[in-house]
Amino acid sequence: MRELKDLQLLIDEAVTKLEYPAYPAELYEPIKYILQMGGKRMRPALLLMACDLFGGDVEKALAPALAIEVFHNFTLMHDDIMDNAPLRRGKTTVHELWDRNAAILSGDVMLIQGYKLMMQVEDRLLRPILDIFNTTAVGVCEGQQLDMDFETRSDVKIDEYIEMIRLKTAVVLGGALKIGALLGGADTKDAELIAKFGENLGLAFQLQDDLLDVYGSPEKFGKQVGGDIISNKKTYLLIKSLELANKEQATELSNWLNLKQFNQQEKVEAVTAVYNAVQVKQYAETTMQTYADKAFAALEKITLPEENKQYLRDFADGLMVREF
Amino acid sequence: MRELKDLQLLIDEAVTKLEYPAYPAELYEPIKYILQMGGKRMRPALLLMACDLFGGDVEKALAPALAIEVFHNFTLMHDDIMDNAPLRRGKTTVHELWDRNAAILSGDVMLIQGYKLMMQVEDRLLRPILDIFNTTAVGVCEGQQLDMDFETRSDVKIDEYIEMIRLKTAVVLGGALKIGALLGGADTKDAELIAKFGENLGLAFQLQDDLLDVYGSPEKFGKQVGGDIISNKKTYLLIKSLELANKEQATELSNWLNLKQFNQQEKVEAVTAVYNAVQVKQYAETTMQTYADKAFAALEKITLPEENKQYLRDFADGLMVREF
Repeated sequence: MRELKDLQLLIDEAVTKLEYPAYPAELYEPIKYILQMGGKRMRPALLLMACDLFGGDVEKALAPALAIEVFHNFTLMHDDIMDNAPLRRGKTTVHELWDRNAAILSGDVMLIQGYKLMMQVEDRLLRPILDIFNTTAVGVCEGQQLDMDFETRSDVKIDEYIEMIRLKTAVVLGGALKIGALLGGADTKDAELIAKFGENLGLAFQLQDDLLDVYGSPEKFGKQVGGDIISNKKTYLLIKSLELANKEQATELSNWLNLKQFNQQEKVEAVTAVYNAVQVKQYAETTMQTYADKAFAALEKITLPEENKQYLRDFADGLMVREF
Repeated sequence: MRELKDLQLLIDEAVTKLEYPAYPAELYEPIKYILQMGGKRMRPALLLMACDLFGGDVEKALAPALAIEVFHNFTLMHDDIMDNAPLRRGKTTVHELWDRNAAILSGDVMLIQGYKLMMQVEDRLLRPILDIFNTTAVGVCEGQQLDMDFETRSDVKIDEYIEMIRLKTAVVLGGALKIGALLGGADTKDAELIAKFGENLGLAFQLQDDLLDVYGSPEKFGKQVGGDIISNKKTYLLIKSLELANKEQATELSNWLNLKQFNQQEKVEAVTAVYNAVQVKQYAETTMQTYADKAFAALEKITLPEENKQYLRDFADGLMVREF
């Protein structure tokens, strides 16, 4: 089995070799730019990993893997416009460096380019793989819509939040693994199982991300503590706390959410105090573990040699942090 | 053979029956809105027409025809953002009625929806039809990019202009006919020929549109005369006139192009006077006729019964106006 980091490198090289028409330059330059910004190449690497685990030829899965990466970067390019984000991976975003129109149109071409790359599979797999790609792509758009809707809503329920992160993040991970598995020769049942593994792992990973924002040690994870709190981001912790809070705690949270001017550290400390009082960390950890368990349960049912399953277990363990 | 207007009606009905998920409503409402704005449904009707002419079942070609219409409306939704257009077909544009983000994201979903509909063809035709769709889709984006680039350039050449309208307008007409022909059972050669017919007819039609703006009688075509002149739109007439103009005429044109405040009628009359002086109408008509001839030449080579060819000839004749 190939190591994940080797697969990520393989994608990195292949991305560099992607060729674009020279004309019109304004259309293709932003695509080169965003694709060469880097990133972990995790989604395409997962596709290759699944292909490899089922005994497929990783080289032959490169085009569809690139399709997933190009698609992912299309969503980033359009999301950055929608979120008014000035930076992405520490670099100026496309709509800032060029303009909004360039980011819209180049993004559109990337989505089409994604289909072109995804079509580089044998005829037998063309329809099933494109079906997965379509479902994944619609899911990501629906997830982004829900994410935007939630910003202006104060009554978001936990189930809705889980559905949002499932669509926006988890579905692509499942889709990438499923496509890779089919390319590797997996039957439909195993492909479904590895998709389920990926989707549930993605949910657990996202919930962990919510937890790390508040409870992660900054030395260990290099992230500012409380970024989500400062920006009023509707995370599992906030939504569940609003649900668990008594009248007094609810008022406290709501006051901080509505405050336009505040001391950042003070807000983080006050909101965290409510989180602690309602014991939301335990709820989040339990939910996270539920999804991790679902992922592992799906994994166990896959008909792969023990060694390959262990690879998947190790991968999942590596993603899940045991100590904050 | 079915009449074109019946095919347009068929599309209109099918568009009304398209179903979307209820949730998230914000994502799907703009799609319903733009698709029910109307429009001539010309592109999907051409697809059905080609299918019908080659003896195919029009009902079975409905999904790919809808794909073309959904795709076309996706480009309109995104183009309207890029062009800051407040109105489309006399109705408020999506980015005005909702907001820019809604128009971006709903447009993205429409492009994916286009692929989903286009995939509703038999396995044998899946790859060739999607290849045509990809080429068409990239072409339209490239055309839109060139169109935007031209707005800020003063050195656009006629060849570049032709390439722009080919990509932005003509390629979709050719692509729709080609897909319809394949669905109707045409061989690759005939499919290529009908695509060539459509593409060249599209070019002739666009050049005619440029001519009508200045030389069309408003009573006959119901359009304001000189709209392109007022907005400095780089049409065949303007680009070719700049090329043909002597120093004095070039200065005259350039002055009008740079004037920020002007009397509209005065500008239209002055620019038209230069157009007449350099006899650009004849150049445009000759070029238009060249493309019309190419369209008819391709048509003659198609292996269809005389009656079916006559249908295509009548269709083309109907599009081309003999008197302005």
